Amino acid sequence: MKKIEHIGIAVKDIEKSNDLFQALFGKAHYKIEDVESEGVKTSFFKCGPNKIELLQATNDNSPIAKFIEKKGEGIHHIAFAVTDIKEEIARLKEEGFQMIHEKPKRGADNKLIAFLHPKSTNGVLIELCQDIED
Amino acid sequence: MKKIEHIGIAVKDIEKSNDLFQALFGKAHYKIEDVESEGVKTSFFKCGPNKIELLQATNDNSPIAKFIEKKGEGIHHIAFAVTDIKEEIARLKEEGFQMIHEKPKRGADNKLIAFLHPKSTNGVLIELCQDIED
Repeated sequence: MKKIEHIGIAVKDIEKSNDLFQALFGKAHYKIEDVESEGVKTSFFKCGPNKIELLQATNDNSPIAKFIEKKGEGIHHIAFAVTDIKEEIARLKEEGFQMIHEKPKRGADNKLIAFLHPKSTNGVLIELCQDIED
Repeated sequence: MKKIEHIGIAVKDIEKSNDLFQALFGKAHYKIEDVESEGVKTSFFKCGPNKIELLQATNDNSPIAKFIEKKGEGIHHIAFAVTDIKEEIARLKEEGFQMIHEKPKRGADNKLIAFLHPKSTNGVLIELCQDIED
């Protein structure tokens, strides 16, 4: 794992949260993106080598809607950048970690992603992500 | 804000979690530190330019004990590295953010730190930290 790629934050109202995080960082988001397959609207802020991803549910079945219902707004996941996501999934399974995705899938921000199950990681939802080469 | 300095993760048993995060990162922690003033034991892992800080309560009044009682184990806070913490506190107050610490205090890992109140930051507990020059 090379670095924290981003922190995902579940929010109720992405417009309001955009203003809030713009004030926090002293600069605007660089990207918004709808990820229909996940039922989320996202907004990305840069912070040096790292990013913050705001996530708002676009329907009631979205994982973000369920998260907010259960825990309220707040930090939803940590994503780590990896060089070779397939190799990393194989290594983590070998170490006994439980994957939500055994195979990488396409995520927001031009990435291949896979999530680990928080049951096997101290309650922390962890995402692996690898840049997709153009 | 220059980067995510670290993510703080509240854990019940720091020995067990050390093993778990060692397996996750494929390498051992580089430091353990007791912060008596906060009632916590900490353990730090490097991940490129970022760190993961595991936090275990050492007494029942520790903020970490209260967090785990309320929310269970998981991500506790995000810390951002800043160049001038006093200047950053002043800027954020001007922007309307509510500080838990209006003045920087000494934290773990040789840092001056100050927390923002999660009420003003979408439920996310945010720490500012500045390296202390030797």
